[in-house]
Amino acid sequence: MEVIKKRYIRMKEKYKELMSKAQEIQVIEEISSLMGWDTLVMLPEGSVEQRGNQMAYISKLAHLKSIDPLIGIIIKEILEHPEYEKISETEKRNIYLVKREYDKKTKLPTDFVAEFTKQSVITHEIWKNARKNNDFATYLPFLEKMIEFGKKYAHYLNPDLSPYDVMLDFFEPGMSVESYTRIFTPLKVATVELIKKCQNASNKPDETIIHRHCPTEIQKKISDDIIPLIGYDLKRGRLDIAAHPFTTGSYDDVRITTRYLENHFTSSLFATMHEAGHGCYDQNQKKEWRYQPIGNYCSMGIHESSSRFYENIIGRSESFWKFYFSRFKEITGTIFEDVTYEQFIFAINSVKSSAIRVEADEVTYNLHIILRFEIEKDLIEGNIEVADLPKVWNEKMREMLGYDVQDDAEGVMQDVHWSGGMVGYFPTYSMGNIFGAQFFAKLKKDIPNWKEELENGNIEIVTNWFKENIHEKGNMYDPSELLKGVTGEEPTPKYLIDYLNEKYSKLYNF
Amino acid sequence: MEVIKKRYIRMKEKYKELMSKAQEIQVIEEISSLMGWDTLVMLPEGSVEQRGNQMAYISKLAHLKSIDPLIGIIIKEILEHPEYEKISETEKRNIYLVKREYDKKTKLPTDFVAEFTKQSVITHEIWKNARKNNDFATYLPFLEKMIEFGKKYAHYLNPDLSPYDVMLDFFEPGMSVESYTRIFTPLKVATVELIKKCQNASNKPDETIIHRHCPTEIQKKISDDIIPLIGYDLKRGRLDIAAHPFTTGSYDDVRITTRYLENHFTSSLFATMHEAGHGCYDQNQKKEWRYQPIGNYCSMGIHESSSRFYENIIGRSESFWKFYFSRFKEITGTIFEDVTYEQFIFAINSVKSSAIRVEADEVTYNLHIILRFEIEKDLIEGNIEVADLPKVWNEKMREMLGYDVQDDAEGVMQDVHWSGGMVGYFPTYSMGNIFGAQFFAKLKKDIPNWKEELENGNIEIVTNWFKENIHEKGNMYDPSELLKGVTGEEPTPKYLIDYLNEKYSKLYNF
Repeated sequence: MEVIKKRYIRMKEKYKELMSKAQEIQVIEEISSLMGWDTLVMLPEGSVEQRGNQMAYISKLAHLKSIDPLIGIIIKEILEHPEYEKISETEKRNIYLVKREYDKKTKLPTDFVAEFTKQSVITHEIWKNARKNNDFATYLPFLEKMIEFGKKYAHYLNPDLSPYDVMLDFFEPGMSVESYTRIFTPLKVATVELIKKCQNASNKPDETIIHRHCPTEIQKKISDDIIPLIGYDLKRGRLDIAAHPFTTGSYDDVRITTRYLENHFTSSLFATMHEAGHGCYDQNQKKEWRYQPIGNYCSMGIHESSSRFYENIIGRSESFWKFYFSRFKEITGTIFEDVTYEQFIFAINSVKSSAIRVEADEVTYNLHIILRFEIEKDLIEGNIEVADLPKVWNEKMREMLGYDVQDDAEGVMQDVHWSGGMVGYFPTYSMGNIFGAQFFAKLKKDIPNWKEELENGNIEIVTNWFKENIHEKGNMYDPSELLKGVTGEEPTPKYLIDYLNEKYSKLYNF
Repeated sequence: MEVIKKRYIRMKEKYKELMSKAQEIQVIEEISSLMGWDTLVMLPEGSVEQRGNQMAYISKLAHLKSIDPLIGIIIKEILEHPEYEKISETEKRNIYLVKREYDKKTKLPTDFVAEFTKQSVITHEIWKNARKNNDFATYLPFLEKMIEFGKKYAHYLNPDLSPYDVMLDFFEPGMSVESYTRIFTPLKVATVELIKKCQNASNKPDETIIHRHCPTEIQKKISDDIIPLIGYDLKRGRLDIAAHPFTTGSYDDVRITTRYLENHFTSSLFATMHEAGHGCYDQNQKKEWRYQPIGNYCSMGIHESSSRFYENIIGRSESFWKFYFSRFKEITGTIFEDVTYEQFIFAINSVKSSAIRVEADEVTYNLHIILRFEIEKDLIEGNIEVADLPKVWNEKMREMLGYDVQDDAEGVMQDVHWSGGMVGYFPTYSMGNIFGAQFFAKLKKDIPNWKEELENGNIEIVTNWFKENIHEKGNMYDPSELLKGVTGEEPTPKYLIDYLNEKYSKLYNF
């Protein structure tokens, strides 16, 4: 007994050592994320180069710490330890997550990572100018290189799987071409049909409402009023302005950003609610898991389910505005005084085919994603060439959304992702919508009077449901496991389709 | 020849290695300073603990890098190298500065540093509460401990010198009890006399002017207008609000802070100009010396000479306001419309004995410093006990400034420094005034028409003189060397005394 106990203690010590290494990496990443925030929100324009050197240093430090061979040795010792089975599930998950990251990072040769990073910085600059000048030809050779890099990246991670499957799993653990196809196919069919119905409906929203001039100061007041309502804690975060809204940080210091467009107040408002949704997820992580790998977000898709839930399912809902519309009118003064509740709800839920993904409405949005998924798949599987992208893109836009792309700037070059070699990321955005709707269906069962609660402004009841069921579970489970635990089902587009059909048939009256 | 050349090259390589280590420490310190800025300016109130962990990590990293034994080995190899004499003066200075820092840091046992840091954090908290509650008795045992720590610190650095001499040299290289006494004695005599003359003068300023209500928004406009005028580059820095104004950063990212008091606009205005003066020094460092130890500030006193130059010699001068008063009136609208230029100048230069150092005017300020110097000296030399401090403090305040201290909160407990074990720092503030006046005397010789230039708003001509003569020289020389190079003289209070006598005899008309 004595000996075994001693051994067990020694394994606990090994585990503690592993966790302290994980904590060190976490602290470095927090520092790095603060620096990233400062770069996008506060940095004086003349300090870009100086900041570059600081960022390079901290990234290299984080990388070196995360490929420390000692991590591999400790993991091996733990997994082979006779007492391994006796440790708790959370401890096992922590070990699994450290191992997953360590394996990923150590499979990539350091030289390759350096070259990949360097090339992606260059290509990002090229992309910015090419988009501005609508010049795909200049971008092409650089994009080709990045796609090649992406394939190599995938090959290093897992040479036995098809590269696109590796990429999909990288951004959303457990997902593959097959599982995405199973989910996206019915969603595509249903969405195309729904868009047609909306287009054919005689009932049309008055879109001019959302383009009425609304001063930044007033929009700021709305943002400051709404984000605490939905549960984002300003004592453990802050809201600032950034050209491209984002969320960063963890636990007690989670910062969100938005931007204000005076002739498009909903763009700002829903960006704020979107980021506050991300912010709630990060702020609601379980305190006792802080600095442990399980005390972190589950996946990009699950993260996005929070943000898109607050942006759309709450932010564009009748229930929320039944409560909030009078407060909104109070803050905005005379700007919307002639607008009725019904006109307002319809205007913020207009369905319309358009060029730009990030500006798309709740219905058409998923087609933008499915289009990118189909193109990425063909690209990586070698069915199309990088040079064909503009042609393929425009054809699909016409076919799926009935939209005639004017030029490559508003077409194939609109997104930043590919210029950084991020292939396989887009599908996680739609998974956010799918997860969100699936969670919402369960929430409605768990809280039968959810509608009245929302209409009375009790958004906390919803946020608490999300906190308990999703946020506080951190990274204890893979996304589909988490989903099954919460909803009893695998990921399915059913609930999103039902939600969209119900909502828009009522709005458009068909 | 071949062999020697090879050796020389190898020494160059050693030097390069040493510089790359210095650069790494510099980058970590930049990151740490950004985090420090964020903590004081941006941090959400609930994130203090989380930030504490991040700060502890980065401080420990900087410390570990700066005591890397390899630094000691490389320095030794370089200094003993047969080709050492052939390298340039800048290279030699770089090696000297790295060695000075390395020696300082490695002389202190790691355990001692940890204990010192821990105790200073505790004592700082105790001091904050004790000051609030006017409770010296509670503070006393903690302060006693910190003073003991300070003495030990000095002993570790140099057991052969008297501890207060070690402390003085630590904050201002080359200074000692003897040199400070030589400088402060005539300054004290002259100042006491000048204050008496001001007090006896029949001409009195109307102090109510500076306490007129001036909204924060208007004060911000003045700050934004003035700081580029005096040469602070907002493209390589930013101005924010902090409870206790400070400057941080280096080269292309130098950030300054201020605070706005609506019933005391000069407090904000001169704080802004003070910090902008610090900011100019840091922004004006020579680009080609970036990341080298010589590309840094020379000493606390020299740094303070820039800040106090812009705060007082420029900011409270007739010449500057001859140019700026109309602009100031334009920005402030009706607030000061009845105030004449003469009334304004007199009001911002009122001489008056008061309790608080940081609020003291240009004349009485130095007595506050000399008082602290005399007390520190007696304390460290064992002539007085820590428990005697309130009594000694109040006696000296009465004797030197004719001021009756009400309680210890506005007396001996007003400053933060001692609670952190910082003994020997105060004198550098007055050295800033002394250096500043000495530089100003030389500047007036070099630019005979300086007065007209200032009156026409050409402050750039002054800033450029400072840039070329002081700022760009970085840490190439010790303070007295720098001073001798620029002015041809050792540090002397003569120019400060002359400047004060001339200015205030004119203002008070005696």
